Amino acid sequence: MTKTDFSRDLEIANTLADAAGAAIRPYFRTGLSVDNKLDTGFDPVTAADKASEEAMRAILQVECAEDGVFGEEFGRKPGLNGREWVIDPIDGTRAFISGLPCWTVLIALAVDGVPQLGIIDQPHTGERFVGLPGQSWLDHGGKRLALKARQTPALSRATMATTDPYLFKGLEYDAFSAVSDACQLVRFGYDAYAYAMIAAGGVDLVVESGLQAYDVNALIPVVTGAGGVVTNWSGGSAAEGGQVLAAANAQLHAEALALLQGAAA
Amino acid sequence: MTKTDFSRDLEIANTLADAAGAAIRPYFRTGLSVDNKLDTGFDPVTAADKASEEAMRAILQVECAEDGVFGEEFGRKPGLNGREWVIDPIDGTRAFISGLPCWTVLIALAVDGVPQLGIIDQPHTGERFVGLPGQSWLDHGGKRLALKARQTPALSRATMATTDPYLFKGLEYDAFSAVSDACQLVRFGYDAYAYAMIAAGGVDLVVESGLQAYDVNALIPVVTGAGGVVTNWSGGSAAEGGQVLAAANAQLHAEALALLQGAAA
Repeated sequence: MTKTDFSRDLEIANTLADAAGAAIRPYFRTGLSVDNKLDTGFDPVTAADKASEEAMRAILQVECAEDGVFGEEFGRKPGLNGREWVIDPIDGTRAFISGLPCWTVLIALAVDGVPQLGIIDQPHTGERFVGLPGQSWLDHGGKRLALKARQTPALSRATMATTDPYLFKGLEYDAFSAVSDACQLVRFGYDAYAYAMIAAGGVDLVVESGLQAYDVNALIPVVTGAGGVVTNWSGGSAAEGGQVLAAANAQLHAEALALLQGAAA
Repeated sequence: MTKTDFSRDLEIANTLADAAGAAIRPYFRTGLSVDNKLDTGFDPVTAADKASEEAMRAILQVECAEDGVFGEEFGRKPGLNGREWVIDPIDGTRAFISGLPCWTVLIALAVDGVPQLGIIDQPHTGERFVGLPGQSWLDHGGKRLALKARQTPALSRATMATTDPYLFKGLEYDAFSAVSDACQLVRFGYDAYAYAMIAAGGVDLVVESGLQAYDVNALIPVVTGAGGVVTNWSGGSAAEGGQVLAAANAQLHAEALALLQGAAA
């Protein structure tokens, strides 16, 4: 079996990330117009979000019109060849509208439902985390840094991250608490950026729930390319979203999974 | 009464921030040696933290030897003239060791106990938030942007931030919950950076507890220079730390204070 060559796809993905960043930057920390997407709750959709996804879809239409596209703002365009670009034009819109610099643009290429290429891009800091089978790296300031997740041996030595502990309810909250209580350190508030930090060796574990496919697909190659493990809370594929467990290594993943699987959906 | 001229002090403060950033950068996202400052709990002190404070103290010894210095790592050196530099070499050390880019260097000049000049500096993103009486600005990428806090009229429209909701206990937690429940949006995890976002018009409110003087002094001029209000939970000076309430405007501050003052220390 020959190893698939993703170099052309990586080129396209970088072009998408550049276009998304250019579309978003003028809206960051300036007068934003925020609609409420749902009547219940607060789910801000900014002009930046739409401009970012439109810019990426326009490129994909030219570069690979037969590929499918699934994005947060404009839904799913079925493909003809088993390839699908799964994109979140701004992950962390709440952070974005608060001026906080850890929102990201998420770009994945899934082949037959398996995410193979992922980009977590932060246009404000200029950081681009990239994952492919067997490798992850950070492009930043003209330099490229190979990423490697940590060998932290146990939860008792681990740093865990999650965006918002109040997103877990009932059994899920109990399971989350069991993991966070077992960890040495817990950080909140970083959305997809926290997964990039697993790849970069700063964070050991991310536990989340209620995610969408476009929240997760791009994270998987970045984390696994750096040696980490990403599954749902049953230990199966996380590509469809829902309950997600990402860990720096298999040992930590097993220890956390044992605490979470009782609350698996 | 003539307005005090802080231009020379600002020059010194910028030199301090440059030196701190240069001392810290080599340690960010690389093999860090982390000691435990306390046997109970996890309070990481990195080589970067110490190098940063040492670099700043060396400059102050040359530039203004009669001024006092109070820093997190090396304590208080009394001054001879009522002026004190209050510095936190890395605010957000837990974010720092996790690779997250929202730790900051905090530099304040207090005169007779009142913080008059403040800098919140983020060396990785290159953002420097500066406050003086009546003005705040952001220096970033060679550009200077004046900062202005928002006129959000009520908590029901406000975005609140706090680093970690689990830092509040008992009565304090109830008071914090009353405020966070009243707000439209709550974000976690940004340490001093969240106060800079009040000045930048992205966040409306920060509620915290258990802070030290060096955690707070630099934030006060940045927030108040942009039109915001910073007090403790009794409505008095926050310069000594403890329970802190920062708001984008007086109306929001009054509304939050009414919910917090029952839990004031």
